Amino acid sequence: MKEEKLILDGNRVAAAMKEGLVEQIKRLSEKEIVPCLATILVGDDPSSATYVRMKGNACARLGIHSIRVELPSTTTTEELIAKINKLNDDPHVHGILLQHPVPHHIDERAAFEAIRIEKDVDGVTTIGFAQNAFGFADFPSCTPAAIIAILEYYNIPIEGKHAVVIGRSPILGKPVSVMLLNRNATVTICHSKTANLARLVRLGDIVVAAVGKPNFVQGDWIKPGAVVVDAGYNKGNIGDVDYEACLENASAITPVPAGVGPVTIAALLKHTVEAAERFLAKSVL
Amino acid sequence: MKEEKLILDGNRVAAAMKEGLVEQIKRLSEKEIVPCLATILVGDDPSSATYVRMKGNACARLGIHSIRVELPSTTTTEELIAKINKLNDDPHVHGILLQHPVPHHIDERAAFEAIRIEKDVDGVTTIGFAQNAFGFADFPSCTPAAIIAILEYYNIPIEGKHAVVIGRSPILGKPVSVMLLNRNATVTICHSKTANLARLVRLGDIVVAAVGKPNFVQGDWIKPGAVVVDAGYNKGNIGDVDYEACLENASAITPVPAGVGPVTIAALLKHTVEAAERFLAKSVL
Repeated sequence: MKEEKLILDGNRVAAAMKEGLVEQIKRLSEKEIVPCLATILVGDDPSSATYVRMKGNACARLGIHSIRVELPSTTTTEELIAKINKLNDDPHVHGILLQHPVPHHIDERAAFEAIRIEKDVDGVTTIGFAQNAFGFADFPSCTPAAIIAILEYYNIPIEGKHAVVIGRSPILGKPVSVMLLNRNATVTICHSKTANLARLVRLGDIVVAAVGKPNFVQGDWIKPGAVVVDAGYNKGNIGDVDYEACLENASAITPVPAGVGPVTIAALLKHTVEAAERFLAKSVL
Repeated sequence: MKEEKLILDGNRVAAAMKEGLVEQIKRLSEKEIVPCLATILVGDDPSSATYVRMKGNACARLGIHSIRVELPSTTTTEELIAKINKLNDDPHVHGILLQHPVPHHIDERAAFEAIRIEKDVDGVTTIGFAQNAFGFADFPSCTPAAIIAILEYYNIPIEGKHAVVIGRSPILGKPVSVMLLNRNATVTICHSKTANLARLVRLGDIVVAAVGKPNFVQGDWIKPGAVVVDAGYNKGNIGDVDYEACLENASAITPVPAGVGPVTIAALLKHTVEAAERFLAKSVL
């Protein structure tokens, strides 16, 4: 008998999340509030343009307003921050997403920090990160939130499991590590300086690949029965995981595309709607 | 031939750190600034009272001013925060230390958050934690900072090593994990829900015990040649590590007392002096 493999279908998880939002958006509209996400794209990276467009389209389909700010690649850090501050002050904007990465001459961290915490729907500010680390964030970063949402949707146990995260970026590896930790996983964080990477990954009951290298995670790194989550997105819609090879050992795996990606967008929509709800609650007070 | 064991002498590290501070304190005094630490003790826990007294004495020996605030165990969260706000507003106070733990009825997190970031010399605020996690904190929590200082003083390599941290508290396990991670260690964070703890600890090139249970870490958990750091302090000056047993396998180990403890106090003094320097730099601007 062939072992059954669970393909963790991101589209299905995203659909369930969006369905839950419909009612919330309706209730907001009764108060004459339309949730609004402002996306900021700096420069002309085609992948980034695609992501931003996908996010805008996803908003539109759900009746969330979106404002698309496009700035030339010559934009300075100061100009970008000035733009963010305008959006901070705009009462119609509930969420602000600065598409990563920005051109190299811009201080991305400074730009992220400029986003007011109430509108930081992608959890990129340091305060947002820390609130997440301490378990009381309103809006964790969307990709980490998506990874947790997928595991929860499929009832994959996290508590007591050993999660191995490959990658330590401030908006993916680090926050997903603390989110798994706060859900009582034992967490190992690996990265480019890790010795014996394959041996460590082989310990993982849950393996999260967030490294940004196509097909990086090899099949024989996966412990039989492990759950593999591929948070990578590389050119040509290729994940960080050698899918076919890892599928051999995994009990469950996210594909690319249609794995973490659509759930990340659903998390962004969810956070935007929740930001609008919080805005309403505050203005009622 | 008997293998040589390195006893990581916290008093020696602390002395070196304090020596470096003398010149800084002298320069500040030329500008008529005396660094000042306010310690807050709530309730009458005898260990906490001892720690606070030790901190005050250490300040005095170095010419750092200290203000000792003692509040009854019946103090409310609001009263504590009001007191912290007074210290925030006092231009003569450069650092504020709220002794952990406070009585259970107090919202300790809310009290920590009230400390202004410029005066958060023990790195207890969420923003302080996040800045530390992202590698640009002014003042990481003192015990994690002490652990790093000890490793650095003894030239123990961190990069590429596997560090296993036992404990995940917001002021010890979590921050020391990110500090080791930011110094390019691979980090595994274990805790009460970890399965196979002994097996995981045995992977560690560096083992940090921050669990708060006397003699918890057993000798046969330690990989031969590993470095063992005991950040525990339990009643009767007993660490989290079964010292004699772990010494068998370890290549280097911190004793209790005279290990992490004195360096934690030295880190607190260092942060207080640095906070005074930053205050001066700002007031000169």
